[in-house]
Amino acid sequence: MKIALISMEVVPGRPDRNTKTICQKIREAKAAGAELAVCPAFCLSGRFLGRELSQPAFLRDCMDDAQDIARAAEGIAVLFGSIADEAERPVSDGRTLLSARDGALQEVARRPLHASSPFSPLIYALPEEDILIAVDAAPFPTPLRGAGLAALARKHRKTVVYVNALGLQDKGKTVYAFDGVCRVCRADGSVVLTTPPYEDGITVVDTAALTSCETPAKEPEVAPIYRTLRYGVRKFLERIHMERVVVGISGGIDSAVSAALYVDAIGADRVLLVNMPSRFNSATTKGLAAQLAERLGCRSMIVPIEESVAHTVAQLTEISVEGAAAAPGERLKISSFVRENMQARDRSGRVLATIAAAWGAGFTCNGNKAESTVGYATLYGDLAGFFAALADLWKYRVYDLARYLNASVYGREVIPQGIIDIMPSAELSDAQNVDEGKGDPIRYPYHDFLFRAFAEDSRLPEDILQAYAKNALEAYIGCAEGLVASYFPTAADFIADLEHWWGLYTGMAVAKRIQAPPILSVSGHAYGADHPESQIGAYETRAYRRLKEELLNA
Amino acid sequence: MKIALISMEVVPGRPDRNTKTICQKIREAKAAGAELAVCPAFCLSGRFLGRELSQPAFLRDCMDDAQDIARAAEGIAVLFGSIADEAERPVSDGRTLLSARDGALQEVARRPLHASSPFSPLIYALPEEDILIAVDAAPFPTPLRGAGLAALARKHRKTVVYVNALGLQDKGKTVYAFDGVCRVCRADGSVVLTTPPYEDGITVVDTAALTSCETPAKEPEVAPIYRTLRYGVRKFLERIHMERVVVGISGGIDSAVSAALYVDAIGADRVLLVNMPSRFNSATTKGLAAQLAERLGCRSMIVPIEESVAHTVAQLTEISVEGAAAAPGERLKISSFVRENMQARDRSGRVLATIAAAWGAGFTCNGNKAESTVGYATLYGDLAGFFAALADLWKYRVYDLARYLNASVYGREVIPQGIIDIMPSAELSDAQNVDEGKGDPIRYPYHDFLFRAFAEDSRLPEDILQAYAKNALEAYIGCAEGLVASYFPTAADFIADLEHWWGLYTGMAVAKRIQAPPILSVSGHAYGADHPESQIGAYETRAYRRLKEELLNA
Repeated sequence: MKIALISMEVVPGRPDRNTKTICQKIREAKAAGAELAVCPAFCLSGRFLGRELSQPAFLRDCMDDAQDIARAAEGIAVLFGSIADEAERPVSDGRTLLSARDGALQEVARRPLHASSPFSPLIYALPEEDILIAVDAAPFPTPLRGAGLAALARKHRKTVVYVNALGLQDKGKTVYAFDGVCRVCRADGSVVLTTPPYEDGITVVDTAALTSCETPAKEPEVAPIYRTLRYGVRKFLERIHMERVVVGISGGIDSAVSAALYVDAIGADRVLLVNMPSRFNSATTKGLAAQLAERLGCRSMIVPIEESVAHTVAQLTEISVEGAAAAPGERLKISSFVRENMQARDRSGRVLATIAAAWGAGFTCNGNKAESTVGYATLYGDLAGFFAALADLWKYRVYDLARYLNASVYGREVIPQGIIDIMPSAELSDAQNVDEGKGDPIRYPYHDFLFRAFAEDSRLPEDILQAYAKNALEAYIGCAEGLVASYFPTAADFIADLEHWWGLYTGMAVAKRIQAPPILSVSGHAYGADHPESQIGAYETRAYRRLKEELLNA
Repeated sequence: MKIALISMEVVPGRPDRNTKTICQKIREAKAAGAELAVCPAFCLSGRFLGRELSQPAFLRDCMDDAQDIARAAEGIAVLFGSIADEAERPVSDGRTLLSARDGALQEVARRPLHASSPFSPLIYALPEEDILIAVDAAPFPTPLRGAGLAALARKHRKTVVYVNALGLQDKGKTVYAFDGVCRVCRADGSVVLTTPPYEDGITVVDTAALTSCETPAKEPEVAPIYRTLRYGVRKFLERIHMERVVVGISGGIDSAVSAALYVDAIGADRVLLVNMPSRFNSATTKGLAAQLAERLGCRSMIVPIEESVAHTVAQLTEISVEGAAAAPGERLKISSFVRENMQARDRSGRVLATIAAAWGAGFTCNGNKAESTVGYATLYGDLAGFFAALADLWKYRVYDLARYLNASVYGREVIPQGIIDIMPSAELSDAQNVDEGKGDPIRYPYHDFLFRAFAEDSRLPEDILQAYAKNALEAYIGCAEGLVASYFPTAADFIADLEHWWGLYTGMAVAKRIQAPPILSVSGHAYGADHPESQIGAYETRAYRRLKEELLNA
């Protein structure tokens, strides 16, 4: 049987546009001699629809559009996914698979494979064929897909034809990329075809003549993540009708990776880099920022912020506080800590936001996931931006990306090695002088993994402390051996550090995440829609308190 | 039977603190001669717990704490709510009712009355008594409570004893107040006791001697909303350990109501008002802001922003844009529209955020729900702040509150009548000159109700257009008669306006809401947790397109 596998971009909430795409793909499939065209799950409606889901008018339009598709399926069978009516939704996540041919339309599958599993395509056994159709709408990453398809094929002893949705969909704060990969597995579980990710197109296979495919070339672990980022930022800009991007660059690693990513994704002529030094920024990082801008070949500006910040300090400390509640001659004092955050807000709220508006652009948020986890960022400052493309990546991944960008994407050192080698630092005060080897309070080689245990593996302080007490923490969280003892000479030091970051993670950082930009999900555990949280603060379990007391009294 | 009704503040995610409160209440109930103490639903665990819900360690602690409560229930029966284990959760929302006495503990109810209804307390019939116990954890507003309790009493021909949780809990972006009201209904449905909202305490009733209570005095419709706001801002500040508040005041209605609310809730000595005029602010509004500050008796400052904005304009237009992609001598241009938003960000990101940090305070977001609905606010500008207390109130409610604050809360004109009378205006350009009667593009007497139809009643443009075509729109959305014809001479005008605001509501405003501050829910339909949304943009249904064509061709 000749089957056309359809990789099509699904626009959520736009059945009218998706219907046009499906009808176009049907024509292409027929022209290629296919007897059956298989489109992905939710390809008519989209999957993440917010309140549209609850609108009967929307479902009604989807049904009308499905009829149009059925009429377009002249002389060819078409399978395509849509949204089911509301009554079924708690059971089946709303997905339904429709079969159309010559004007006739019928539902052929509704319940997904495993409603609660990340691998849950809709499955349909083609009548009188040894073929299972699996249509999916699964966002990146899809870790179970390979094994899941092979297991399905072997279990049923049938060929499995799998089609995933392509496109970008969001649940507000969290943005998901769908890779559009199609795959064919033989009954023995061997993969005979995999289409390239993030590419629109149709692929026709003859199930009577399946030949083994070549094993794909080994690629770095970060490669699929990079593809997702590149596709994600490009599509997100399209979605919000934004043509250009402004990136603040500090000479540090996060902003450098962000700049190189956007230049690769949308082109140098659509990116403007802005370096905004204060008196705390070293000649080293200013030089590195300039090198980066020059190597990327896009527009750039240098906008010093010293004068503006000084003006604000002078103005706000000169104006007296009046009113019945004020002391005579009352004035505000501005501490060095307050001055740190002022710089961050001056850069984003004053400079970047204005440049972006003037240039018809959005400005990016370059923060990583370690910073998001503990709120190591300034609200309306470096936490601002139209999109946080790197905010679901731990710091070590950002370094991986920097090396990958140089080695594989650009094939030259666009991100100067100095940026990769320098100590990470916010450079907001003399205490963060990079030339003296001072920097961020986060010790990434350990904290990246501690924070990952909190955020992605749901580990509580009691779990961490138990592993620490057994001298097994590094293996437990996956960081390098020997770090814990070298960072924390005593149990008291270890506990103070743990409680400090746990307190921020469950406290101030929650407040900051509420107002953070949308995040591109690449881990499957991004902050936002998949990480419900309340402003509760730290709670110490009974087991934690007992163990802590034991350790401190040992 | 003597029953103690417990109004207790529940701290979500803190079973240790709630256990202490419950044990203290048990002692008070015993001292008052009660045979049974009834605590609210979820009073041990809290109800909105984010990821804590998924932690077995948390459930384990709740069970251990429940045992402690059972031991404290010496010689008295105690009913209290907690969280059930995860397996039951899809069915029952996790709520469980436990009965404790003399060290023994048992579950007596689990499934709520109506899982899908806003009125869904856990119900338990006391053995050998004609009494139903109803324990609840229902946030404000609780519109069905009165009728629901009476119906329950009549249906079962039993006395109903109802206890609601007290306190503040949040689902991140959305913050809910629980009023702690206890109520007793006789078998005929008549109410014999209602405790005051938002008050901690215990009330002992003898069910053998229930006498009718006086009908409560009639109060303005806005009174319970104001109580919720006052309680909400006070408790939210407590929750985030913030003592002081900075409020930017423009001389307009929203900021005036915000200022008067905070002064009433936390005291004049903990509030600092800041007026930040630019050249577009009239003497009228500057004068009104000064009057407001003087009448509220708190601290105040006047911080002009003209110099800072001019510095930024000069700086960013002087610095040349460099790089391979730039034209020779390329410079940015700053339009008057860009300058409007610059002012808003200068006020919040530069002035208010710095003053707040210097004074150990948070600064408020004063926006209303009409602005939130269509994103009529500047990100990192007037949309910034630690908390948006008024963001679930339509503009007409803000006016109601202003009059209520003067008449009933302060008993004098703290909000100058001029602020209530003036045309609402952002005063960000000459086009918004209040002295010339120019102001916001939102025509609140109509748009408030149109936006409410979108946001709270899930009306689509096709519904609105249908009502318009039948000349029945004003009744349909609840605004004053005659407005539609006076604002929109032709169907084309009407449709252009509808599409403009619907486009913003489903487009740019979604992006802004993602980064907006947490909102205090007072409508039961606040943006945030109860209003899932995706960045999809406007979709025109088939029915809408047909009707529009008919109207435009008529």
